[in-house]
Amino acid sequence: DILSPGQYDTVYNSLSLVIAAQLFTAVFLLIALPRILPRYRQAITVAIIVCGIAAYHYFRIFDSFREAFVTEAAGGQGDYAQAAGAGFNEGYRYVDWLLTVPLLLVELIAVLALARSVQRGLLVRLVPAAALMILLGYPGEISGDNGIRGLFGLLSTIPFAYILYVLFVQLTKSLNKQPVGVRRILSQLRWLLLLSWGVYPIAYLLPMLNLEGADAWVFKQVGYSIADILAKAVYALIIFRVARIKSFDDD
Amino acid sequence: DILSPGQYDTVYNSLSLVIAAQLFTAVFLLIALPRILPRYRQAITVAIIVCGIAAYHYFRIFDSFREAFVTEAAGGQGDYAQAAGAGFNEGYRYVDWLLTVPLLLVELIAVLALARSVQRGLLVRLVPAAALMILLGYPGEISGDNGIRGLFGLLSTIPFAYILYVLFVQLTKSLNKQPVGVRRILSQLRWLLLLSWGVYPIAYLLPMLNLEGADAWVFKQVGYSIADILAKAVYALIIFRVARIKSFDDD
Ligand SMILES: CC1=C(/C=C/C(C)=C/C=C/C(C)=C/C=O)C(C)(C)CCC1
Ligand SMILES: CC1=C(/C=C/C(C)=C/C=C/C(C)=C/C=O)C(C)(C)CCC1
Repeated sequence: DILSPGQYDTVYNSLSLVIAAQLFTAVFLLIALPRILPRYRQAITVAIIVCGIAAYHYFRIFDSFREAFVTEAAGGQGDYAQAAGAGFNEGYRYVDWLLTVPLLLVELIAVLALARSVQRGLLVRLVPAAALMILLGYPGEISGDNGIRGLFGLLSTIPFAYILYVLFVQLTKSLNKQPVGVRRILSQLRWLLLLSWGVYPIAYLLPMLNLEGADAWVFKQVGYSIADILAKAVYALIIFRVARIKSFDDD
Repeated sequence: DILSPGQYDTVYNSLSLVIAAQLFTAVFLLIALPRILPRYRQAITVAIIVCGIAAYHYFRIFDSFREAFVTEAAGGQGDYAQAAGAGFNEGYRYVDWLLTVPLLLVELIAVLALARSVQRGLLVRLVPAAALMILLGYPGEISGDNGIRGLFGLLSTIPFAYILYVLFVQLTKSLNKQPVGVRRILSQLRWLLLLSWGVYPIAYLLPMLNLEGADAWVFKQVGYSIADILAKAVYALIIFRVARIKSFDDD
């Protein structure tokens, strides 16, 4: 693909925005950690790790992007073509998700501070399902063939549906045992999760809808960037709010 | 060897995954350290150091890989050949192991919090044996000759067998003195150790079985990556869990 200077800058700025958002959410939470009761620190610690891992991968994605597209024009005011010898590595995203998606679920369950056995029961279902979802998506993503892409997309949707089932059906009774003040926030959090996670399978579908070319690609990168900020940084801040409110209540 | 774009990306992503896993396990443990009783902090501190050393070496391995394989094709969509003037340095791994393998054993013994004399007795046997195992493997690894490889592989297996003997026979009576809640976890940990450590001598054998070429090489790099995550990061998290449970019990 050939990117216009405006398209190049848009992707560049979005990727940099994600680095800043993830890195400083992590730093904020690190500084704020002592203000949380020890019981909820596990959730916030996991949130810090998730945002840190995301920042690391976005540094790499950013570098990969800068190496992959080049222009000869003075002042960068010309079209950007794909560089010789360096591709934009979309696979990084899957590496990131393999680590962070299970951890996002751990973060949610940890802040609920449920009874040990309930917690264990939820985690042994959610964590392997999340890892499986990502692992099944990867072969479809790197394959150039739409049939293979469709097949693995479908397989990956099974654990995805299962995760949503556990979160929206099985978790609901535990939510009713949460303090009143956080119940509404937690239910909003679930919707944020659904909304932001939904972006990824949609982006995965784009090549199958023949929505390719520079515009679709730029749109996808910006879409991923926004979804990643919502699904990790904003999500972490809401989890932090829940932990703060519960820390007050328990005191 | 010539790598296809898919093979190149797979190695690239695996190496990057290991960096993220080791680095953020270290960060996680560092943040969580104060939640452990002082008595178990030595074990977690050593775990942080091990994951940190591994992250450092994987940064180097990653850079070495990126310099060693190059393509001229636009967008990186062509085969990757070995670069002039830059080889992939497999020897890094032995440097890493020389430091981390003895420390992994120290980590395990430290979390058991045995009587001083028992602890000393185990360490003076395990640590030199681990160092010897790695030192003896190195001449075989860098030699191009299968006879020398076999000889040093055999010599290196003697301390390896001795370590397993100490862990699985001599350590067993100490395990029975551990609190009930952690006994099962500790025995799982030993199996994780056996399983993940076993990967390294098997990878060492591959050239002697004439399993060479690009596919075998990619398989080996991915195998090392998974084994390194299991043997250091996952291992550290299980040690952390043991330390947490024991901290509660002692409180
Ligand atoms: C269902 C489905 C997928 C789901 C991906 C999801 C749900 C990813 C979530 C990522 C997150 C939350 C990242 C964090 O910021 C894939 C793998 C694209 C493959 C196609 C089918
Ligand atoms: C027995 C044997 C070996 C054992 C290596 C081991 C056991 C390495 C462990 C490495 C670890 C645990 C790394 C940490 O992640 C060598 C040296 C390959 C040489 C051949 C014989």
